[in-house]
Amino acid sequence: MKEYEVTPKGFKFYGTHVGIKKKRKDFGLIVADNVCHAAAVFTKNTFCGECIPIGKEHVKNAELQAVVVTSGIANVATGKIGRENEYKILDKLSKQFTIKKENILPSSTGVIGPQLPIDSIENFLEAESIDLQENYEDFAHAILTTDQRIKVRSLSVGDATILGIVKGSGMIEPNMATMLAYILTDAKVTKQEIYPMLKIAVDQSFNTISIDTDTSTSDTVAFLASGHHEVENTEMQSALNQICKELALDVVKDAEGATKTMFVTVKNAENKEQAKNAGKSIINSPLVKTALFGHDPNWGRIAMALGKTEGLVFDQNNVEIYYGHYPIFSKNNEEKQNINKIAEYIKQNEDIYLTIDLHQGKETVEVIGCDLSYEYVKINSDYST
Amino acid sequence: MKEYEVTPKGFKFYGTHVGIKKKRKDFGLIVADNVCHAAAVFTKNTFCGECIPIGKEHVKNAELQAVVVTSGIANVATGKIGRENEYKILDKLSKQFTIKKENILPSSTGVIGPQLPIDSIENFLEAESIDLQENYEDFAHAILTTDQRIKVRSLSVGDATILGIVKGSGMIEPNMATMLAYILTDAKVTKQEIYPMLKIAVDQSFNTISIDTDTSTSDTVAFLASGHHEVENTEMQSALNQICKELALDVVKDAEGATKTMFVTVKNAENKEQAKNAGKSIINSPLVKTALFGHDPNWGRIAMALGKTEGLVFDQNNVEIYYGHYPIFSKNNEEKQNINKIAEYIKQNEDIYLTIDLHQGKETVEVIGCDLSYEYVKINSDYST
Repeated sequence: MKEYEVTPKGFKFYGTHVGIKKKRKDFGLIVADNVCHAAAVFTKNTFCGECIPIGKEHVKNAELQAVVVTSGIANVATGKIGRENEYKILDKLSKQFTIKKENILPSSTGVIGPQLPIDSIENFLEAESIDLQENYEDFAHAILTTDQRIKVRSLSVGDATILGIVKGSGMIEPNMATMLAYILTDAKVTKQEIYPMLKIAVDQSFNTISIDTDTSTSDTVAFLASGHHEVENTEMQSALNQICKELALDVVKDAEGATKTMFVTVKNAENKEQAKNAGKSIINSPLVKTALFGHDPNWGRIAMALGKTEGLVFDQNNVEIYYGHYPIFSKNNEEKQNINKIAEYIKQNEDIYLTIDLHQGKETVEVIGCDLSYEYVKINSDYST
Repeated sequence: MKEYEVTPKGFKFYGTHVGIKKKRKDFGLIVADNVCHAAAVFTKNTFCGECIPIGKEHVKNAELQAVVVTSGIANVATGKIGRENEYKILDKLSKQFTIKKENILPSSTGVIGPQLPIDSIENFLEAESIDLQENYEDFAHAILTTDQRIKVRSLSVGDATILGIVKGSGMIEPNMATMLAYILTDAKVTKQEIYPMLKIAVDQSFNTISIDTDTSTSDTVAFLASGHHEVENTEMQSALNQICKELALDVVKDAEGATKTMFVTVKNAENKEQAKNAGKSIINSPLVKTALFGHDPNWGRIAMALGKTEGLVFDQNNVEIYYGHYPIFSKNNEEKQNINKIAEYIKQNEDIYLTIDLHQGKETVEVIGCDLSYEYVKINSDYST
């Protein structure tokens, strides 16, 4: 598998401004030439957006032909009118492209509460004949909210191509799926296999990151396969895993206000769940995050966060903590001689690697987080209702 | 019960500087004239301080005569030497005051990792004859770290008095007990009753607050009764509940960098645990907290935080959300007309009351949190190793 940026066969894109945001693009489309095999995973947030139940229903038969995204307003907590507005959009698109409404997956992202400006959107969809493009860039821009950049990855798998596009930089601690991510391939994937494959990839990627502990109401990861090329299943799975990992990392790299990315590996845990919970407890601790922002090798806060992990019991005497290759805690004692080296390591690097060795079992999990900065507070105390 | 500041009979206090911090008081003592009935609850953090196992052991027989607190260094993750250092301090105190070492409860709070400057402490305890005082103020100062003020409450119960002293303003999401809190009374409380009474009071107070989701490694709440006055049990419980509630609120009011206190009441939940989890999910959400700091009536983030609550399932159509007396969300719709009033309400008040009515059952719980400000980031990225 080598990286290049070719779009998979059978998909076209579109992105424009329809009047949800003030100026920036706020309406994105992916349309496939034919019905694709498809799978999607969605937020577990009970207060979910109006798109989520529609999307679940539409992808049930493992078929999709299009994706529509509105950005700027999340269409969450908008009741019956919110639901009807989504169907109005789907109806117009269904007519314009002669595809079944049930084969369109809708997504929406932005402020929770307000209704979509449905008149503007309908007017636009009636007036314009939408000219789909080979290039994904306008679409990738159209789905952004507080993101600083578009996040796109692609890979080749045998003769096929796999392309992933994601948005998200805040309200990110995915539980099952994350944010909005669309993964397209021109490989053939059967209806039976497409969901399990996506689930495996998402668990190892999006579900291991956290920017701010807040699970979004709109999280969706969708995977569409247009079926032009035969690809070995294991090869496909591994490409899908890689692209999801890369996209998830792209999201953390674009984390609101973040200056550092923190990779926490919890080694030799009794089971994967405990390892993941311990890692999440560390990357979610505001004290660990602010210390990282301050370039402070404050490993005591890491010990604290490890210790508060729900359901994890361990013996302090067996725990080892490393920054990069430098041990800072082992045999229940601080490795004081490394403090200055670690301070320098944090200062010099954007990617900070932390390793916790529990010496309890054989399972290892990596999770990815970021620091907590003035800028995060600024962005989120200003981003107004 | 009316409030006044008298210390209960049978207790003396002390606070001084022994060289853990640079200048400020860092060594505090409470000594009772006689052995007291006592109970204590401790952090559930697995990575707990060296004082915790000693304290658990010493309070097992429901007897204590003294409390010693060192502040500036937490004596956490310090291994065998850390444990020995605590015993050295207890030995010296035991000699100086002719009390059994097993009747002293040790506590330590501050930076995790370094060893206590045990030579300075021992030198001090050998050189000085400690002159205990009737007044608690030096003690209350000696236990502080990032706190901005001492936090002391007292009440009369029948003929007796109950006095509570607490420290804490960061690394606060108590799980079972919190921070360091000492509650003293000259009432008589039996050995059998003292622990259950404390447990009830702590669950309703310290265990309902969160400043930053981080459960400290040193949390301790101790309750000592010197037994001079007979007091009705129910009266005592209600005074203890009240003083714990007041002290817990004092801690949130002194939250690192906070400008607002947020009281979240979750009403009509199926059970108390769900109500508490939902409330905690809201007060712990960084997006809710930054919105509060920005005076932004961003109730969508409250909906998000409610929706991500682990194990809570509800129907959006039945949920109501209020700021103060203003409804902002009901019947799955935004009460738009109240947005400006709510923005004004947040701007004008330090105490912000949020109510979530789930309309599912009959249980109600109030939890207390605060906003997330630039100052919190500053304090915790500067507070150095």
